[in-house]
Amino acid sequence: MTPIHLLVISAPDVPHLEILDTLPPQTIVTISADPGVLKAKAPETQVVLNCTGRAEGLEAILPDAPRLQWIHSLSAGVESQLTPVVVASTVPLTNSRGVYKESLGEFVIAAALFFAKDFRRMVRNQEAGRWEQFDVEELYRQSMGIIGYGEIGRAAARRGKALGMKILATRRNPAKSDNDGIADKLYPPEQLGNMVAESDVVVVAAPLTPDTRGLVDDQTISL
Amino acid sequence: MTPIHLLVISAPDVPHLEILDTLPPQTIVTISADPGVLKAKAPETQVVLNCTGRAEGLEAILPDAPRLQWIHSLSAGVESQLTPVVVASTVPLTNSRGVYKESLGEFVIAAALFFAKDFRRMVRNQEAGRWEQFDVEELYRQSMGIIGYGEIGRAAARRGKALGMKILATRRNPAKSDNDGIADKLYPPEQLGNMVAESDVVVVAAPLTPDTRGLVDDQTISL
Repeated sequence: MTPIHLLVISAPDVPHLEILDTLPPQTIVTISADPGVLKAKAPETQVVLNCTGRAEGLEAILPDAPRLQWIHSLSAGVESQLTPVVVASTVPLTNSRGVYKESLGEFVIAAALFFAKDFRRMVRNQEAGRWEQFDVEELYRQSMGIIGYGEIGRAAARRGKALGMKILATRRNPAKSDNDGIADKLYPPEQLGNMVAESDVVVVAAPLTPDTRGLVDDQTISL
Repeated sequence: MTPIHLLVISAPDVPHLEILDTLPPQTIVTISADPGVLKAKAPETQVVLNCTGRAEGLEAILPDAPRLQWIHSLSAGVESQLTPVVVASTVPLTNSRGVYKESLGEFVIAAALFFAKDFRRMVRNQEAGRWEQFDVEELYRQSMGIIGYGEIGRAAARRGKALGMKILATRRNPAKSDNDGIADKLYPPEQLGNMVAESDVVVVAAPLTPDTRGLVDDQTISL
């Protein structure tokens, strides 16, 4: 078979790229974060995997990559990759949407519980050898407000719901999530402030775009 | 109506006892942790609420409480209250079984996530002003083994299950929990070691009785 040239923008020897060893033998893999190497490999490259979340590597490759057919971003967020050079290219750029949702959904709950139980205070007491009883908060009496009710937002919501939290959510098109069995109440974007005012925990899981930049400002937080 | 004399063994002025103010007016409430006061009130007392989790107050009251009809323990565990004097009494002693299950179930998950995400390391890094990326564990790939699959054990199990954990459980009579929709596998007590060996997180939620004392020993932990 014709070889396929895959160029991976990443420091080499990182454990999570070991899975590339399982690609079929006709795949020729180059892993580098060095702009010189990326430029040199660009002409033969058909597929790029960008593990940096940034545009520098792509900008080194794109001007001299006539065979390039696909760029995949290892991150879900692409806000730092959409520079004018990358946007002007006709090569499809795909992102890792959904890949991190379970990890991030779990982390949201971990962080909410960290604050609810004031583990920082427990650690401080433990380090000081101090036994102190104090009241902690219970998430199952609280509300979680989710800004950006997509894959990650819903992964957090499912877990919050299972812990007994009331789930509030806002997304550009709230009708998309009506009756999903998770959200107790959906808000249109213009009612973001109302949702935040009713939330004990706020999760920001919207993609970073020109529309969402600055969406959560000091006025929102004051609510 | 005839007054009812309620004697509460507790330090006075604790916020969680404010709810006693809502009792009907014929209830005469005395709150004290002082043995002299308890002894003095014993003869007229019909109901005792023990908020200490210990037997001292009960032992001050019981020898001189002919009208006593009911003792309620504010704690779920009664192991420190079952002294010979209390056991010999014919007055019913009830415990607060189930009252704390949601709080404790939630705390189990909070603690499991605290360790999985190594929040201690994050706090240390934050305090040192150090930005460090490191891999964390994910509960949704792990197993939770529950020793004592009663109210509290199941409250933890339901939450662990919702987070994607595999739930293992042991109880005196495992058949009681067959097909409960939560536990993936039930173990009879003599297979406790096997369960622990397969668990990433172990929850000890058995009541402390002569049978369970020492149940989790160094040999169990070594598994």
